[in-house]
Amino acid sequence: MPSRYELANAIRVLSMDAVQAAKSGHPGAPMGMADIAEVLWNDHLKHNPADPKWVDRDRFVLSNGHGSMLIYSLLHLSGYDLPLDELKQFRQLHSKTPGHPEYGYAPGVETTTGPLGQGLANAVGMALSEKVLAAQFNRGEHQIVDHHTWVFLGDGCLMEGISHEVCSLAGTLGLGKLIAFYDDNGISIDGEVEGWFTDDTPARFNAYGWQVIADVDGHDPAAIESAITTAKAEDGRPTLICCKTVIGKGSPNKAGSESCHGAPLGEDEVAATREALGWAHPAFSIPDDIYAGWDAGNRGAAAQSEWQRRFASYKGVHPDLAASFERRMCGDLPDDFDAGIDAYIRQCAEEGADVASRKASQQALNALGPMLPELLGGSADLAGSNLTLWAGSAPLSRDDASGNYVNYGVREFGMSAMMNGIALHGGFIPYGATFLVFMEYARNALRMAALMQQRAVFVYTHDSIGLGEDGPTHQPVEQLTAMRSTPNLCTWRPCDTVESAVSWKMAVKRDTGPTALVFSRQGLPHQIRSDDQIANIERGGYVLVDEASELDAIIIATGSEVGLAVEAAQQLTAQGRGIRVVSMPCAEAFSGQDAMYRESVLPSDALARVAVEAAHTDYWYKFVGLDGRVVGMTSFGESAPAGALFEHFDITVEAVVSAVEDVILD
Amino acid sequence: MPSRYELANAIRVLSMDAVQAAKSGHPGAPMGMADIAEVLWNDHLKHNPADPKWVDRDRFVLSNGHGSMLIYSLLHLSGYDLPLDELKQFRQLHSKTPGHPEYGYAPGVETTTGPLGQGLANAVGMALSEKVLAAQFNRGEHQIVDHHTWVFLGDGCLMEGISHEVCSLAGTLGLGKLIAFYDDNGISIDGEVEGWFTDDTPARFNAYGWQVIADVDGHDPAAIESAITTAKAEDGRPTLICCKTVIGKGSPNKAGSESCHGAPLGEDEVAATREALGWAHPAFSIPDDIYAGWDAGNRGAAAQSEWQRRFASYKGVHPDLAASFERRMCGDLPDDFDAGIDAYIRQCAEEGADVASRKASQQALNALGPMLPELLGGSADLAGSNLTLWAGSAPLSRDDASGNYVNYGVREFGMSAMMNGIALHGGFIPYGATFLVFMEYARNALRMAALMQQRAVFVYTHDSIGLGEDGPTHQPVEQLTAMRSTPNLCTWRPCDTVESAVSWKMAVKRDTGPTALVFSRQGLPHQIRSDDQIANIERGGYVLVDEASELDAIIIATGSEVGLAVEAAQQLTAQGRGIRVVSMPCAEAFSGQDAMYRESVLPSDALARVAVEAAHTDYWYKFVGLDGRVVGMTSFGESAPAGALFEHFDITVEAVVSAVEDVILD
Repeated sequence: MPSRYELANAIRVLSMDAVQAAKSGHPGAPMGMADIAEVLWNDHLKHNPADPKWVDRDRFVLSNGHGSMLIYSLLHLSGYDLPLDELKQFRQLHSKTPGHPEYGYAPGVETTTGPLGQGLANAVGMALSEKVLAAQFNRGEHQIVDHHTWVFLGDGCLMEGISHEVCSLAGTLGLGKLIAFYDDNGISIDGEVEGWFTDDTPARFNAYGWQVIADVDGHDPAAIESAITTAKAEDGRPTLICCKTVIGKGSPNKAGSESCHGAPLGEDEVAATREALGWAHPAFSIPDDIYAGWDAGNRGAAAQSEWQRRFASYKGVHPDLAASFERRMCGDLPDDFDAGIDAYIRQCAEEGADVASRKASQQALNALGPMLPELLGGSADLAGSNLTLWAGSAPLSRDDASGNYVNYGVREFGMSAMMNGIALHGGFIPYGATFLVFMEYARNALRMAALMQQRAVFVYTHDSIGLGEDGPTHQPVEQLTAMRSTPNLCTWRPCDTVESAVSWKMAVKRDTGPTALVFSRQGLPHQIRSDDQIANIERGGYVLVDEASELDAIIIATGSEVGLAVEAAQQLTAQGRGIRVVSMPCAEAFSGQDAMYRESVLPSDALARVAVEAAHTDYWYKFVGLDGRVVGMTSFGESAPAGALFEHFDITVEAVVSAVEDVILD
Repeated sequence: MPSRYELANAIRVLSMDAVQAAKSGHPGAPMGMADIAEVLWNDHLKHNPADPKWVDRDRFVLSNGHGSMLIYSLLHLSGYDLPLDELKQFRQLHSKTPGHPEYGYAPGVETTTGPLGQGLANAVGMALSEKVLAAQFNRGEHQIVDHHTWVFLGDGCLMEGISHEVCSLAGTLGLGKLIAFYDDNGISIDGEVEGWFTDDTPARFNAYGWQVIADVDGHDPAAIESAITTAKAEDGRPTLICCKTVIGKGSPNKAGSESCHGAPLGEDEVAATREALGWAHPAFSIPDDIYAGWDAGNRGAAAQSEWQRRFASYKGVHPDLAASFERRMCGDLPDDFDAGIDAYIRQCAEEGADVASRKASQQALNALGPMLPELLGGSADLAGSNLTLWAGSAPLSRDDASGNYVNYGVREFGMSAMMNGIALHGGFIPYGATFLVFMEYARNALRMAALMQQRAVFVYTHDSIGLGEDGPTHQPVEQLTAMRSTPNLCTWRPCDTVESAVSWKMAVKRDTGPTALVFSRQGLPHQIRSDDQIANIERGGYVLVDEASELDAIIIATGSEVGLAVEAAQQLTAQGRGIRVVSMPCAEAFSGQDAMYRESVLPSDALARVAVEAAHTDYWYKFVGLDGRVVGMTSFGESAPAGALFEHFDITVEAVVSAVEDVILD
């Protein structure tokens, strides 16, 4: 039976060899954290390599994602479907082993990491999911949700601001099953961190209400084992285990230096490291006894079987809860969802209310909420403005996690990356809100949701100068463009209660990526539609007002400017013009329609086009071309009442009429 | 002589009355912090209302910017040119009193605040500027730089991640003249913060190496006075003064509740508050003795005169240093700057080196650096990748702040908002770097630089899939679009050493806003240009390759894709086509040229256009229209060597040739 040291060395050699073969990558972190990982994975991690999606598995997150060869080595060695050939293809096109761990590539990778601090935030979201699911589903002796979330992190994660946001909240919420290992190796890319990072990290985490286990020798398996045992014994507070490690441990000439952080060791040093480790095997050759020492197959199968027995017993006593749990963990919507939301959409059309779209969003939540116990809402301290609380909202607390609403505090980035962790965990559809302009504080988490194809619903209210007096810091201009140009993100900016309800429907149904829902602060008029028009809203763009005579020009508008467009069309129609109004709540969805539909809405020979949106004009040239006009903004906003601002920035019915007259003359 | 309480009440009534008149705003914070502000402004703040730009004034930052009526009241009462009529116009168009304090509107507002946490970060940048300027210029008894930076902040600022980044770094750098007041009122927008914010804040700041003065009664002038005295006595550590306050103090029915945070008190409560405060005067009426108690005119004039005498004495002994100080504080460039940089640009053209543009950037820094002692560089822990260190770079430390380079650590947002503070302080041109994709971590600070019209240079390297193996988390796609659509931001993506040098020149010369410089990881070929072409680079877009025969099509390209465009043009020209290549390193600069120039580059009757850029395609339709083609990306990247990725995503010479053939046939 190989020693713990020999087992850990398998990680070290696989990591340095794969980085060497790829001629790029990060050997230092995997070599430094190998001993910690060995103890955790061989003695504590609850997982089954044969079923990486087992719902009650422990979650393992490598927040310092550049150390990707650590997780690939662990997955390969412990028996996941990640053969040696994939490790040999590290960082190559079409391999399962990209440079950073990417969700959906290798089995067992729970989240995409690399952007520092976000893996930690995902882990906080996962641990919160476990706590909430447990509170919602466990009954007496029937503990069907009971797993840990483990996260590895480095100095970089701890320097990033998001680590503050999520660790502060994890402490407040008492996420006792979250256990983090700090790889305290004293090195970051620019060298020894003492010149730029001198926090007393244990004191910092104590201040957050965490259990902190300081001064653990990260190369001493007994010390690691003891720390993990202490961590698992604490269930009211998250635990930070601070491990002193040597980056690149095992490399005789590069260990302890930034030179092994982000570059191959070099052939000579690889050979020297092999010798220093006493590892006699060639590259990518692992002896059978090492494999045997790592194999988690039997342990994992037994653990999952035991859980399945428990779940069967639960199901016998609580069949409805069990069915709901199974449905939610699969990510399926209730059977009656479509009928329910469609009835609500018809109701909106019939009622024809003139309200702010943020209010329409809240009303939609009131319609959706009772159907969707998987909704886990929240706001970054703007619940009363974002209108994200609905009649059934129940805020979570440390002591009662059975609710469905998170008071995230003023933590936009933390909220958004936690939402990604919640979506990845399963069992929930997270939604979370802030003002549209503060999407920027969380911008990279929105991108990560799109990259990981996660169903998370980002609610952004106060979507233009229409928010008024709070002024330019709070008034979005360029944000819609940034979001629409983000791959795999759908951005909806509805114009009334009907489009708002459809937007929520599409967001909830979209299980291949996130949706941003963009709502106004100010009131918006209801638009009248036929059943066909209502059905076409889902297509992202549709003819809201048909031309009354031969087509002279098309006005394209979204959200709060649809009302302006319709009024402008009425004036122009009265003058004998043939004006079509296209409402385009989701340009990305519209672009995804077949050519025939798109042509029916925007005929390619109709080049007299005007787009109107109280946002930056750049984006809309894609739809109006060089001959078209865009009524919108190119500058920042100002502080004033909303009405004065629309006049000041010339986003008015008169401006639209004038632009249409221009393009018709051209 | 009025009591301190009466003086503070002047803030309370002005704040509640202005909010009431505006029918929107935030009375709670100004009323809660009035007593703290009164002691600070009347007894400690070094400033001269008659000269808000006096270079050695203390800086005062209201990081909880929603409490803007606090600063407007203070400026008005202490004698700045902010008449009562402006306070009456709070939150109205064209007033000097917008809803949040906006830099450049009212004299004495040192920075725009509102986006939480960033004012604090600006203040850290200002305090760092003071420390570095002092180290660079003070000589023996000649202490010409010697002022404090004061910052007010609330729970929101402390929850935001950026507060962690900058306070951690402020501790490491020992910014002893930074003094922060925490308005610990226990309330945020969603209510009592204990449900979502339970940090032990004093312990947290101790962990950063700050002096913390806890448990100060924020309504007791003697306690505040004592805390300030203790804070000023400490010069090796920044100080946090934790003040227990009551939000909306003075309002009999709303004090202590979130109901007074972000809405007018209401006429009845305003009247009740007046009575409770014993304030007998009508709205916007301040008795003369209150004005007299606040007037800082004499004290300020005396302080500035004393400093001017000191500066004159310094100038006598150190005339060159004094001249450099005066030049830098005015933001003027050295007289020989243009000649120097133009000579370097010619040198680049002559040498014709093929290097990565990040390397070209470093070479440009080596040329600029000796001319510009005001450059204050840095990187968020990627110096060796961003290539932001030049031969004259000297990192700062706690004990020696005379250098010109900040190791910001892994703190992109903190770095960027600190850069804004550095630019606002004066005396420096800050530049700071990270990978282009991680611009997103700092995105709102970039926007704030643009909004505040500050000269800060944001250096972003690894600008496309060309970075290769690090994969999609590190590969920008949509970031350029987001930046180009940001008002008042200029984004340059140069294609070789010549354009890189011009980009740096334009960034340094642009004193009306920030510039983003976007550089490649991979090597780029040199392009041959005439003197006229070199001169036209500054215009943002120019004809790099003229058509050899009648114009058939135009290829527009930037950065690393200019080489592809030129090769494609060569192939097409060999086939007898008339192909023009337009290099467009800065589309915003090009759009700002006169119509005749733009027409000369992109004739409006030449509609066969292809844009090529290894980034999202959306932006380029603005230039190629509905008839054009864009060779670029609409998905995220992958992990693989760069060459394989350009093939995989079809951004190749062949793809450009094929797209051009398409548009010619159309």
